[in-house]
Amino acid sequence: MKHFSDVLADAVQAKGSLVCAGLDPDLGQMPPEFVAARVGGGGEPAAAACIERYCGEIIAAVAPFAAVVKPQAAFFEQYGAAGWAALRAVVHCAHEHGLPVIVDAKRGDISSTGRAYARALFGGAALPGGGTGAGLGADAVTVSPYLGDDSVTPFSEYCGAGKGVFVLTRTSNPGAARLQERDLDGRPLYLRVADLIAELGREWVGEHGYSDVGAVAGATAPAALEAVRAALPNAFLLVPGYGVQGGRAEDLAGIVAGDAGGFVVNASRSIMYAWRVKGGDHARAAAAAAEEMRDMLAGVGRR
Amino acid sequence: MKHFSDVLADAVQAKGSLVCAGLDPDLGQMPPEFVAARVGGGGEPAAAACIERYCGEIIAAVAPFAAVVKPQAAFFEQYGAAGWAALRAVVHCAHEHGLPVIVDAKRGDISSTGRAYARALFGGAALPGGGTGAGLGADAVTVSPYLGDDSVTPFSEYCGAGKGVFVLTRTSNPGAARLQERDLDGRPLYLRVADLIAELGREWVGEHGYSDVGAVAGATAPAALEAVRAALPNAFLLVPGYGVQGGRAEDLAGIVAGDAGGFVVNASRSIMYAWRVKGGDHARAAAAAAEEMRDMLAGVGRR
Repeated sequence: MKHFSDVLADAVQAKGSLVCAGLDPDLGQMPPEFVAARVGGGGEPAAAACIERYCGEIIAAVAPFAAVVKPQAAFFEQYGAAGWAALRAVVHCAHEHGLPVIVDAKRGDISSTGRAYARALFGGAALPGGGTGAGLGADAVTVSPYLGDDSVTPFSEYCGAGKGVFVLTRTSNPGAARLQERDLDGRPLYLRVADLIAELGREWVGEHGYSDVGAVAGATAPAALEAVRAALPNAFLLVPGYGVQGGRAEDLAGIVAGDAGGFVVNASRSIMYAWRVKGGDHARAAAAAAEEMRDMLAGVGRR
Repeated sequence: MKHFSDVLADAVQAKGSLVCAGLDPDLGQMPPEFVAARVGGGGEPAAAACIERYCGEIIAAVAPFAAVVKPQAAFFEQYGAAGWAALRAVVHCAHEHGLPVIVDAKRGDISSTGRAYARALFGGAALPGGGTGAGLGADAVTVSPYLGDDSVTPFSEYCGAGKGVFVLTRTSNPGAARLQERDLDGRPLYLRVADLIAELGREWVGEHGYSDVGAVAGATAPAALEAVRAALPNAFLLVPGYGVQGGRAEDLAGIVAGDAGGFVVNASRSIMYAWRVKGGDHARAAAAAAEEMRDMLAGVGRR
């Protein structure tokens, strides 16, 4: 079974891109005529059909320029069962375009509950009469570490089956400093989490030398981002907070590691809704935004 | 709009019960003939129909003895869209039996994503053509605090609309000590979180004197549980880890607060799958287990 970290490293090299295209479908940000055209039956099924279609067009548009895509589970869940079905369809669509998928769900729970979340995201739920459910078919997921190591292992156990995990360390939001940056017995909480990631990731290292257990670390706190890299020299980092949230390309030079950069940078709204700034067709605007971002990051990744 | 904390306090008083009946539907723990009878079309819809039916029977059985129910989202999500629909149906079923519902989802995210999670759980997603989605219809939810205060506020903002929030503090799992019990600038991490809960809950206090922003604190660490109570004198506590996980009724005396006890104790497997120990019909066994638990806790709550 190919390691997730190798799938991601190969994608970065093949595309020459460190771009992770975030999929945060929001009806209010889409062209009004796009949303209106799909009202159809109305209600949640109409909303779900609309976000599935929009995400599908964005995926097709950015596929040449992005290494990976990251749908945000919340934006689908808000439309109930129809939204969940749309999320599964979006994962499938990305796979058809050859893109690996990180489902951003920030789950975290223990024991049988943690395992049920892992099955929801990766597949494997027992069915009556035998067989197992497909789950969302994610290649990797984001995980929240508050409950401790036994809330990460239900997910990291899937690394043997080619799956990946990104554990939150120093996130990109203003409130992150409230707990994550404070000193936990002599080392900031987010670096205690990095130590936990290092431990859990040690046994899951692919051919490129990267671990399948990676970290989420925001571009908005460059010093923290470099500290996470120092604690995790061979982890893949998923870096949000670039662009709209204020992170800059030059702050990423210090986290380059290994033969494929060792990180991907997420941008969601600045790609998906680039039409709002650039004008014109939303898919073409998204493609142009993803291409620009690829080029802006290209110099960093090669350093 | 009635406060969630008042709904819960009234339920505790009306039932004379501190029992929170957890709903963790697991086909492997149900009577095999119950599961076999519902294979029907097979696949995820059959699994979802089975867990919806089982949960419905448990809800009807425990309704006289439980103050509140707590479905665990993971066990539904693992069956995809059909599972999500089953979760919504289970929330509705509990409401029909007059039971408030805490959806245990341990979500936590910021900004527009946090708000989308809140809409998924409480309702309010924008629909094309106007109107809003129903969401799961939860009365309260569990929230993970790792991302900081701005990951709790998207949920606590719903307190004005009669909703409640339980933020994780010291959880009941063995790995909880790994981060939560460690010293964060001179105070354990879980009590830093309690401080945050106190801040966010201050403006949402009901007629009974309890805040709508409560805490999850495990019965397996009695000293930590009492410390959470000391930090949050008027919060409702949601206490897991009782029974199967080792927590004891006598450890709860120190957390009694206000006119309705100020806490509810969750039991999931020991009620839902009581038939495995007691034998006989699963619904009757669940009712008997919930009644026993109510009686065992009754002395504690009155102290």
